[in-house]
Amino acid sequence: MSAAVDSGLPAPHIGTLSGGPLGTIADVPGVTVGHCTLDQGALQTGVTVIRAHRGDPFIDKVPAAASVINGFGKSIGLVQVEELGTLETPIALTNTFGVASVAQAQIRAAIRANPQIGREWSTVNPLVFECNDGYLNDIQALAVTEQHFNQAFDNANTHVASGSVGAGRGMSCFDLKGGIGNASRVVEVAGRGYTVGALVLANFGRLPMLTIDGTPLGRVLAERARVAHAASEAAAGASTTKPEQGSIIMIVATDAPLDARQLKRLSLRAAAGLARTGSVYGHGSGDIALAFSTAYTVPHAAGFVTLPPLVADARLDPLFRACADSVEQAIVDALWSAASVTGRDGHRRLSLHDSVPDLAQLLRPTR
Amino acid sequence: MSAAVDSGLPAPHIGTLSGGPLGTIADVPGVTVGHCTLDQGALQTGVTVIRAHRGDPFIDKVPAAASVINGFGKSIGLVQVEELGTLETPIALTNTFGVASVAQAQIRAAIRANPQIGREWSTVNPLVFECNDGYLNDIQALAVTEQHFNQAFDNANTHVASGSVGAGRGMSCFDLKGGIGNASRVVEVAGRGYTVGALVLANFGRLPMLTIDGTPLGRVLAERARVAHAASEAAAGASTTKPEQGSIIMIVATDAPLDARQLKRLSLRAAAGLARTGSVYGHGSGDIALAFSTAYTVPHAAGFVTLPPLVADARLDPLFRACADSVEQAIVDALWSAASVTGRDGHRRLSLHDSVPDLAQLLRPTR
Amino acid sequence: MSAAVDSGLPAPHIGTLSGGPLGTIADVPGVTVGHCTLDQGALQTGVTVIRAHRGDPFIDKVPAAASVINGFGKSIGLVQVEELGTLETPIALTNTFGVASVAQAQIRAAIRANPQIGREWSTVNPLVFECNDGYLNDIQALAVTEQHFNQAFDNANTHVASGSVGAGRGMSCFDLKGGIGNASRVVEVAGRGYTVGALVLANFGRLPMLTIDGTPLGRVLAERARVAHAASEAAAGASTTKPEQGSIIMIVATDAPLDARQLKRLSLRAAAGLARTGSVYGHGSGDIALAFSTAYTVPHAAGFVTLPPLVADARLDPLFRACADSVEQAIVDALWSAASVTGRDGHRRLSLHDSVPDLAQLLRPTR
Amino acid sequence: MSAAVDSGLPAPHIGTLSGGPLGTIADVPGVTVGHCTLDQGALQTGVTVIRAHRGDPFIDKVPAAASVINGFGKSIGLVQVEELGTLETPIALTNTFGVASVAQAQIRAAIRANPQIGREWSTVNPLVFECNDGYLNDIQALAVTEQHFNQAFDNANTHVASGSVGAGRGMSCFDLKGGIGNASRVVEVAGRGYTVGALVLANFGRLPMLTIDGTPLGRVLAERARVAHAASEAAAGASTTKPEQGSIIMIVATDAPLDARQLKRLSLRAAAGLARTGSVYGHGSGDIALAFSTAYTVPHAAGFVTLPPLVADARLDPLFRACADSVEQAIVDALWSAASVTGRDGHRRLSLHDSVPDLAQLLRPTR
Repeated sequence: MSAAVDSGLPAPHIGTLSGGPLGTIADVPGVTVGHCTLDQGALQTGVTVIRAHRGDPFIDKVPAAASVINGFGKSIGLVQVEELGTLETPIALTNTFGVASVAQAQIRAAIRANPQIGREWSTVNPLVFECNDGYLNDIQALAVTEQHFNQAFDNANTHVASGSVGAGRGMSCFDLKGGIGNASRVVEVAGRGYTVGALVLANFGRLPMLTIDGTPLGRVLAERARVAHAASEAAAGASTTKPEQGSIIMIVATDAPLDARQLKRLSLRAAAGLARTGSVYGHGSGDIALAFSTAYTVPHAAGFVTLPPLVADARLDPLFRACADSVEQAIVDALWSAASVTGRDGHRRLSLHDSVPDLAQLLRPTR
Repeated sequence: MSAAVDSGLPAPHIGTLSGGPLGTIADVPGVTVGHCTLDQGALQTGVTVIRAHRGDPFIDKVPAAASVINGFGKSIGLVQVEELGTLETPIALTNTFGVASVAQAQIRAAIRANPQIGREWSTVNPLVFECNDGYLNDIQALAVTEQHFNQAFDNANTHVASGSVGAGRGMSCFDLKGGIGNASRVVEVAGRGYTVGALVLANFGRLPMLTIDGTPLGRVLAERARVAHAASEAAAGASTTKPEQGSIIMIVATDAPLDARQLKRLSLRAAAGLARTGSVYGHGSGDIALAFSTAYTVPHAAGFVTLPPLVADARLDPLFRACADSVEQAIVDALWSAASVTGRDGHRRLSLHDSVPDLAQLLRPTR
Repeated sequence: MSAAVDSGLPAPHIGTLSGGPLGTIADVPGVTVGHCTLDQGALQTGVTVIRAHRGDPFIDKVPAAASVINGFGKSIGLVQVEELGTLETPIALTNTFGVASVAQAQIRAAIRANPQIGREWSTVNPLVFECNDGYLNDIQALAVTEQHFNQAFDNANTHVASGSVGAGRGMSCFDLKGGIGNASRVVEVAGRGYTVGALVLANFGRLPMLTIDGTPLGRVLAERARVAHAASEAAAGASTTKPEQGSIIMIVATDAPLDARQLKRLSLRAAAGLARTGSVYGHGSGDIALAFSTAYTVPHAAGFVTLPPLVADARLDPLFRACADSVEQAIVDALWSAASVTGRDGHRRLSLHDSVPDLAQLLRPTR
Repeated sequence: MSAAVDSGLPAPHIGTLSGGPLGTIADVPGVTVGHCTLDQGALQTGVTVIRAHRGDPFIDKVPAAASVINGFGKSIGLVQVEELGTLETPIALTNTFGVASVAQAQIRAAIRANPQIGREWSTVNPLVFECNDGYLNDIQALAVTEQHFNQAFDNANTHVASGSVGAGRGMSCFDLKGGIGNASRVVEVAGRGYTVGALVLANFGRLPMLTIDGTPLGRVLAERARVAHAASEAAAGASTTKPEQGSIIMIVATDAPLDARQLKRLSLRAAAGLARTGSVYGHGSGDIALAFSTAYTVPHAAGFVTLPPLVADARLDPLFRACADSVEQAIVDALWSAASVTGRDGHRRLSLHDSVPDLAQLLRPTR
């Protein structure tokens, strides 16, 4: 859902699977998202929080796993997710130098809820992902504080904004304005219906590689920029020799009953959706996908864990497709929804719509 | 290079990088490939051998690393490649149940060349990859023997055939005839020119997912098949509910000086090229990429290993693009080059050209 | 259980946990083991088969996972175990160059039981581990055949021999005679009793590193050999400069309900038991641990998989201790049980008892 | 080197390799260590910083790799180390809830040194490890600040204190006082001499498992405590049913020329040393080893990276032994050097010497 921009032009629908009613990660029942956006001159950044359920995430952990597609990244929390296969805090997204503040905030929030943490009980594993928004945002200001996390957390609901909001405020994608993107798909697995939702923090790619629904839009735009000898940023960005310094975080939620091993398999399919937008997982891009299931929780204190019947591995293909398509769609949504933003030192990123007024003509007719 | 089929229609060129003179993995200097093809009624299978150099691979090992994108596969040799980062035999490709025979052949060949193996010296690590050609080939016949490996090895040269040859003889891809595909790309890295070459054994995908250079050809063909109520295999294959039982092996060679860690990074970019053809790394597909460098060798007996200056990680992006583009191009080449084949129990796979006579009209005009 | 040697001296009991009634991996209900031993002059080798249950392993797969502690090894089958977390054949152990024959035999056996394999159904993933017995055995003879696997399979029962039998026939350990070792431990987890059993194929280590139950026996023996200027093999072996060319395969079974992620955690604790015998996981040693659970099976054809309540991760510590202690005990058992063997070219490995007549005096008094 | 305690009783020397002149990680030329200790009532914690060289770590990165032996841990920085194989900040150790502050401090320090970070250049990857000192320290106070990191950094030199100092101030080990431990070993590899040094932050284990140089001391102490019906903490700790909530961080330095893949192999051998002290890598213990080499640096800005000749993998065994022995020795050093500490809520950890006055009698005579 994008409140940010209304160009009138609907985004192309990726693939042949149907989306959920909201078209966001919140189509997975129980999932909520909150943003806190900083928009003050050179500070163009924020925090986004994804909650897997409305309960206490430390007491009722959700199964989860991640794929590090390219590990040029500074997240915190993945070591324990890999070992134990569960989340025990909300998922937080922010800028690269905001990770510490947000992790601190996660720790304090967990202690508030459960004062036994770090005393009678073990400690808590904060999970924070990041992208580098330093082109638009004065990242050296370390402007993100614990309060921003708390606000994002308090804002969490099922009305999920996309675009230049929350952690996506200062992000760039294909030398255009990037940010938060959302999508969902509904599939049938062994006779039952399940939803896969994706939320991305899109901050990767150089313009010439941009591909939307199979159309190599970036090549056209790069050629156009070259011809115009344009001195605009987009043109500067169009150089293929400048390395990527971006990243993308891809959060995948599902209500299908999967265990952590299966969620790791699912998370890797985000790489397929990402590739179809033009990415080759550039050296300087921290490309990480994390998948979680809301089908059951793992209680903090239990001798045994009771699971619902799990989807057999041989039946995972529809979920794999839904993951790839949701992630690709969510990246398109980020570009589609993001408003142009001016940030530090006059740096400006044009939105896709502002940058390409004739977008409708350039895209392939709907199939 | 494909001698198998000449439809007159050139395959689309993937991306904007230039290919090498041969358009095969043999554009990487020193690399040679040999096929041995079994084409006898129900036996439609074979062996393909890739040699990194013309010397003794055990004495002069090449640096290498692999990415297991989806591990539904029965290869042998990857455990040691992961630990030591070198190859010490040629790379062999065959059908799933031919792995044992070919591994045995690799062992005997290594012992013939170096009788100290398994006596004064350590043992040798045969490396054999596989896909399941059981639709066309009577795989239960276990028809591949050590001799077929030896013949493929002896055939190795720089004239590399693509299509329904060698290990590719019985393979299917997107419910069409698959097999061996080749491609290469030339890039500049920090002022020097390097080549990346790819050879794939393509045996994956369901027809509706087929995407060629961004065009969702599979959807068109699936719809066409549905309308025609056709009882042909392609139509049967067009069902999206049948799971994949295929696989793809992607061998990536380069003359750029990289170490094993960097080659692992490079190999993962094959996943991007693969995704752009429509794959989401299906559950039943063993999707494995292996990358090796010919820039130096690691001698079997040495106290210290001298390396050439290695490409800095921050300069890898052109090689990453070349890998993704080469792999996508090689998959297109496999489809383009493969001839239709009839195998066991009258099973038949039509080539892309035989299946889609109006292919030229369906593909997007060259950009 | 060792029928091979009766020195009268009981092996020290490792740790404080109790063993099961048989003192072998067969203390885990349902697990059986069969050996086939080749003892013909220069051929001193064999095959050992471990069955997780008496049913069809392809139809009813058992959950499993492995830790590759040092990947200087040539096993087949681990790629798929890592992806899917299940076994679908018996576990087979043999010499390094016997892997191909045994894998072939596994394939044929699976096809005999399920003729749909490689036709209507997917293929089968043979799982074969190996160590290099080339010091005693003429490994270049490639003497292991499919029949040897079949015999070992047919021999599988709950009376599990240790020592110079089966795949252990030609193995060396700490420059002494190694081979098959067994042990088990019984623990309480969250109020319920579970068994952990270990079977090792022990073929690693140099004499000076040998440690038995904390006693650095190897140093004493190395010093003794040095003083005696002994020309025996043990003395030659005592040199610490000769690299390891051995390996150890550690198979861990349990009836505790664990999933594949947890079994991977469990399998890694084999590294602790191994280290306590003196190993530092030498470069040339293929040190691999695989753990499986018999608490449930994953049916080949199912839309959903129903699991019993799983042990919570926070309760795993008793199982971790049981794994480490079982593996250490099994290694001691291999040394204790193995008979001296003479093999190719007059090579001879003395048993621990033959090599150290005053063993009882050298070991620390029981604690 | 321990200034903290002088019991007069020398610690046993682990293994047969010689130590370096200092007996600390600073025996590796160029390596320095600094501590900042908080010792104020309920605040018993601190920060320890390890510098690989005296230059700018971002400009001249050192090759490094880690092994996560048990991932119950909350470190930051490992994702990028795994991908790129280099360090670009000092290594910092602190308590679990101090990670965020210390990461923030690392970021600020890097920006001070290189104002281009996060602007023209990419961001920086802070590396911070932690253990949970919550038994002695009021960890919920989040008392560690950026200044403590800066002080520890400024204190870095070659006189490295062990025991209840720096990050080790509040740590417990085997229910005794733990903390910082150091050791080194000198070995010959292919005719050249190299040093391996280890620094551990030891905070793991239950008393009954304590093993010192092969002697199962913990069992004796546990039995003694049981007999005495002692109500002391040590006795309470002696229960084997209480789970571990500790951790150990093992930093391994060497001047041997190794690349990141080889350093990963080296780091894993820390698990062998750890196991020999009685650990089975308990569920709740974050057991992480990181190894780095000082033999060369990887410049931040370079097209190509020139390496010295690297040690051949087949020659790594002496370094593997040195790693395992150094880590085991460093754990013993932590116990040996630590002074008893009283912290929050009157919690008290006795040192090994205070807890076991007759230690000399209980240990096995030197071999």
